[in-house]
Amino acid sequence: MNRIIDDPDDVVEDALVGIRAAHPDLLVGTDHPRVMRAAGPGNAGRVGIVTGGGSGHEPAFVGYVGPGLLDAVAIGEVFASPTARAFEAAFKAADGGRGVACLYGNYAGDNMNVKMAVKLAARDGLTVKTVVANDDAASAPSHDRGRRRGVAGEILMWKTAAALAAEGADLDAVIAMAQKTIDATRSVGIGLSACTIPAAGKPNFSIADGTMEVGIGHHGEPGIAVRPIEPARAMASTMMDTVLADLPFGRGDDVAVLVSGLGATPVMELYILYRHVAEILAGAGIRVRHRFVGNYFTSLEMMGASVTLTRLDGELDRLLALPARSIGLTVMGDA
Amino acid sequence: MNRIIDDPDDVVEDALVGIRAAHPDLLVGTDHPRVMRAAGPGNAGRVGIVTGGGSGHEPAFVGYVGPGLLDAVAIGEVFASPTARAFEAAFKAADGGRGVACLYGNYAGDNMNVKMAVKLAARDGLTVKTVVANDDAASAPSHDRGRRRGVAGEILMWKTAAALAAEGADLDAVIAMAQKTIDATRSVGIGLSACTIPAAGKPNFSIADGTMEVGIGHHGEPGIAVRPIEPARAMASTMMDTVLADLPFGRGDDVAVLVSGLGATPVMELYILYRHVAEILAGAGIRVRHRFVGNYFTSLEMMGASVTLTRLDGELDRLLALPARSIGLTVMGDA
Repeated sequence: MNRIIDDPDDVVEDALVGIRAAHPDLLVGTDHPRVMRAAGPGNAGRVGIVTGGGSGHEPAFVGYVGPGLLDAVAIGEVFASPTARAFEAAFKAADGGRGVACLYGNYAGDNMNVKMAVKLAARDGLTVKTVVANDDAASAPSHDRGRRRGVAGEILMWKTAAALAAEGADLDAVIAMAQKTIDATRSVGIGLSACTIPAAGKPNFSIADGTMEVGIGHHGEPGIAVRPIEPARAMASTMMDTVLADLPFGRGDDVAVLVSGLGATPVMELYILYRHVAEILAGAGIRVRHRFVGNYFTSLEMMGASVTLTRLDGELDRLLALPARSIGLTVMGDA
Repeated sequence: MNRIIDDPDDVVEDALVGIRAAHPDLLVGTDHPRVMRAAGPGNAGRVGIVTGGGSGHEPAFVGYVGPGLLDAVAIGEVFASPTARAFEAAFKAADGGRGVACLYGNYAGDNMNVKMAVKLAARDGLTVKTVVANDDAASAPSHDRGRRRGVAGEILMWKTAAALAAEGADLDAVIAMAQKTIDATRSVGIGLSACTIPAAGKPNFSIADGTMEVGIGHHGEPGIAVRPIEPARAMASTMMDTVLADLPFGRGDDVAVLVSGLGATPVMELYILYRHVAEILAGAGIRVRHRFVGNYFTSLEMMGASVTLTRLDGELDRLLALPARSIGLTVMGDA
């Protein structure tokens, strides 16, 4: 395992020390060692936006804290949910007096800990409402969306909800916006290699050389098919077939597209994939309004990529364009 | 080779199609298929800033085209110099009537092709002056800087020179600023795994599992030592020993720090490395004014990282802080 780590059991703590040192303008620590909040004046009078999740997906989750995006984040061990106490502390860190929206991904541990944290916060008079992202179209059939995992589409949900909160919307409106965004969002991933959690020392799943796993999850969860590696054009077709049919997206739609590397895929290859995604969308009469290509939501050093599409109405389109600044996503606005 | 490509011989062209599709606000094509220039109003009345280099280092080089950064870029095949004609076309694309600064890295092919392109441009009355980056402290002894390679430090040279050009400085002043920046910059890399050029299909060098190559180049050029993998803290010490002693940097210095992944190293590990770099600098009485941590200058799917330090005076410090926008680097400014 050729990695840049010290004690494999301490990678999260060690990385957080580095993140705090590197981005004092964006992030500050809190009383809880696994919670960070946005630097700056805080969000008094605004709805707070919180997420949380396991480490190893950087820049998700901590890398989306900043102006116009998340107010606080709860940080888990590698590929593991933050604790209920961490979520609770994140809620308090994000509390600006108008309630907190916790927008997170659909995983058993996160569901359990968020639920507990919401109760803990309620005892202290803090109202927290939640939206559970389930954009991974390959993780369960469409009639069973409640079982689907949340993946890179979470980023778009954070963006629209946070932009609305910044405009002074109340908690119910912010929650409705996050729900609307994720309901209009579908993702799918392809894995080309496994990854290794440092504390485990070896992969807990495998992808044979020369094969790819269509529909793989962000922690190596099994996909819907293992196939011989295809050219990028065919990979894009497979991914877009899954995503487009699911919502479904159709002619005349406006969309945002996010192509994210899973960690080790060269950036030039993400653009090769995007080329085909864009061509398929053009051929289907779907107009791309926002494009994001890069390592936005990773799985340690896994090779592969995910494609996320969000169908936009005028309001989603507008909110995505508003300024935001964070490690993972900076939007300059139209200024 | 588990990669997201179509024909391995076409990866550069295919990626450029994707880049153009993804970033119409930042980049546009030119008459030359391997030259892209900044979108927008052009740079009439300003010195043009150009670089060029092989592909496979994304976001370098094309990802640094944009406002406050490069005006045009010449793009080579994977790990190969752009042609002289491509450099010449990039000079013309960046010509705003006040001459062009070509700021590139010290490699035999690039040196030859830039030299030829400068002559070709001169025949058409276009003045191009050059600065050759040689920040890789491990690539030759300090008394022989002329043989050293240019690596991630180029990004800081582009930033300061472009910021000065944007203020209306003349060509000689822009060239002097680029030279001053690279003269104050030192880098070193550590490689933890090899990488594979798609058209070759297998690595052209190897790093045995459990070992690391200190001083590795961006194309797998041999380093100064192959050692068993060390903890991140020791890796940072080794790298900083090389860099700090070389300029040398010393107590009371202000610096910019750039920690770049080489492609496949998880982002959390870059922050673990940065933690130690920051601690070593603090211990040495060196103040960090600008920090960059991420995949800024990569080598396909190589594992490993580079550390770059630039010693700042007030002017370098000021120019690094001015706004810029590109795929690889966005600086919001102090607004």
